[in-house]
Amino acid sequence: MGSIERIEAVAEKLIGYRDAGNDLVVVVSAMSGETNRLIELAQQVDPQARGRELDVLLTTGEQVTIALLAMALEKRGYPARSYTGAQVRITTDNAFNKARIKSIEHERITDDLARGRVVIVAGFQGVDEDNNITTLGRGGSDTTGVALAAALKADECQIFTDVDGVYTTDPRVEPQARRLDTITFEEMLEMASLGSKVLQIRAVEFAHKYNVPLRVLSSFEDGDGTLITTEYGTDKTMEQPLISGIAFNRDEAQLTINGVSDTPGVAFQILGPIADANIEVDMILQNVSADGTTDFTFTVHRNDYETAFASLQETAGELKAREVSGNNKIVKLSIVGVGMRSHAGIASRMFEILSNEGINILMISTSEIKISVVVDEKYLELGVRALHEGFDLAGAN
Amino acid sequence: MGSIERIEAVAEKLIGYRDAGNDLVVVVSAMSGETNRLIELAQQVDPQARGRELDVLLTTGEQVTIALLAMALEKRGYPARSYTGAQVRITTDNAFNKARIKSIEHERITDDLARGRVVIVAGFQGVDEDNNITTLGRGGSDTTGVALAAALKADECQIFTDVDGVYTTDPRVEPQARRLDTITFEEMLEMASLGSKVLQIRAVEFAHKYNVPLRVLSSFEDGDGTLITTEYGTDKTMEQPLISGIAFNRDEAQLTINGVSDTPGVAFQILGPIADANIEVDMILQNVSADGTTDFTFTVHRNDYETAFASLQETAGELKAREVSGNNKIVKLSIVGVGMRSHAGIASRMFEILSNEGINILMISTSEIKISVVVDEKYLELGVRALHEGFDLAGAN
Repeated sequence: MGSIERIEAVAEKLIGYRDAGNDLVVVVSAMSGETNRLIELAQQVDPQARGRELDVLLTTGEQVTIALLAMALEKRGYPARSYTGAQVRITTDNAFNKARIKSIEHERITDDLARGRVVIVAGFQGVDEDNNITTLGRGGSDTTGVALAAALKADECQIFTDVDGVYTTDPRVEPQARRLDTITFEEMLEMASLGSKVLQIRAVEFAHKYNVPLRVLSSFEDGDGTLITTEYGTDKTMEQPLISGIAFNRDEAQLTINGVSDTPGVAFQILGPIADANIEVDMILQNVSADGTTDFTFTVHRNDYETAFASLQETAGELKAREVSGNNKIVKLSIVGVGMRSHAGIASRMFEILSNEGINILMISTSEIKISVVVDEKYLELGVRALHEGFDLAGAN
Repeated sequence: MGSIERIEAVAEKLIGYRDAGNDLVVVVSAMSGETNRLIELAQQVDPQARGRELDVLLTTGEQVTIALLAMALEKRGYPARSYTGAQVRITTDNAFNKARIKSIEHERITDDLARGRVVIVAGFQGVDEDNNITTLGRGGSDTTGVALAAALKADECQIFTDVDGVYTTDPRVEPQARRLDTITFEEMLEMASLGSKVLQIRAVEFAHKYNVPLRVLSSFEDGDGTLITTEYGTDKTMEQPLISGIAFNRDEAQLTINGVSDTPGVAFQILGPIADANIEVDMILQNVSADGTTDFTFTVHRNDYETAFASLQETAGELKAREVSGNNKIVKLSIVGVGMRSHAGIASRMFEILSNEGINILMISTSEIKISVVVDEKYLELGVRALHEGFDLAGAN
């Protein structure tokens, strides 16, 4: 939600849906800049602000928006009712600042819908069992939307974002990128975890778990967006596409410890201190050398590179390792598609495409529906475009 | 509540009270300017904004303050808990924007106090029986404070304002004005209704009804303020003072209809249309003339003068009255004191003092503990000072 103009625009959009005969439950976030304003207020009082009182503070942001949006609808003659998370009521656990939804009472919403009212719910918030105000943490408004859609058994949960759908890859890197009509939850989860910023992973997981069809739409433009669902839509071709999209992540860094004695527990000895430093490890590779030692490589977020490197050097001393090396100028390229499950040879095709462009692969990691490679960061654009063309993603669905 | 600096200052003040061994329940209002900011947002969406959604919006103002104040206390090592009206819970009727408190659950607050926590409650708000958010309207935070003090059987309800107590009269008009150590509820109610802006009438009424001792203090300076209670304090003299204070009201206007036939129901015929126009009438005077007609005079708020005059002219036509006249350059001066009950001659002393200064009295109205006169507005300062001196209010208590 942006300014008042944005609220007015959303009201107009909702009226269009309402006039088309839909019952509407709308989940909104805070107005643009409002959450940051509140966080700054909190930090003026306590730079370490967190816990119960921070949630009391932050939830006011969405509460302002629900009231204004309800007013905007009522002014236009459309009955509307706003609800805070506490009012709905959305019950969460008591993990302040990052609570998880436990249950949703929806009798009141159902009743309002039956009376022809548009229901507007504050995203991102709930109350624990003792009625303390909680927030759901990052991406919380999307999660609220999905949870409500599940509770109400809605036909569809539409998420309005600043993009008009999910693309085969980032159009800023590959102008030929094409908007997907549909994508599966599993593919979307891989895309999201690989760096696509369209939706928060948590909301997609939630939708997947409760099988709520999710549609990503633009807040600003008309269009059908992308439907995220368990199956391909009615416009599916006989065969699912091999590859749905290409994801990439620039924020990668790689660390290697060479010549570690290959004994049980060595992986834990290396990664334990990294985890203790609260650093998330992504890809992990272990090769056995002929001399009974092993080389151990893993990737972390680029921001954690220095800390991880220092930690690894300490570990290397303890383990009498030969050497520690690293590279924070790398990126990860991934191809994602449920079609991989039933088609062999996709990995080798991927490696061939990259090889044809002279791109050296530093690491490889695979899952059932994705293959990721780490390459030098200078190859990012070239690699994405080559894969996009090589797998014919610009063609029709 | 002003800025963050103000919140920090309040936290420090509370810590002083806490260290002195007091259990504290603190009711706070929105930060300075915040309520106006929210009202402006609402008016951008709907210039006529009111009703349910306006309350959802406005209550965020206090919610921000309770969170920040609780953070400020916790940061200083003092356990604190914030509560919205809904959380307390403060149940009101469902008159949005001007709800009245029906009941307060205080188990949770009592429990927090027992655990040594400072409890911080958002003023001005509650929920109706259907859990809709309501606001108490103007002066609502004071009312919340008094209601909580009554529910918790608190020793005292302290109201921090921008003045350091209740004065014998407005010190801006009479520099000799003296802060009162104590004043009775009845006197305070008369003072408030006569224009003294120290406290909202509603909070005083509420405190009186539930017999909650109320202390008006400065937010900025130290001092004992003024205790408002049913009896004079322990430092009372043998005799209560005759007069506690002099109130005045600049916003008065007077209307007169002359030569109305003196028949039953004529008062209603004159004042009915005024009430229908939602204009509040203050003083009312009716004199019988020798010729069987009557002159009827009343006062209204100066803002309502034009409307009331037009209405009265219409009525005059219907009643075949002789004449309609008015004056919107008048003020009301009042002396207030429970001592009047047991002392005769106070009215005549008042009239004598004014007469000595050449001040002509236009209307007189009396109640058990106050005497009000209407005079030309040019006499306001002179009248106040003369009465203050004449009743020896600058002397010691």
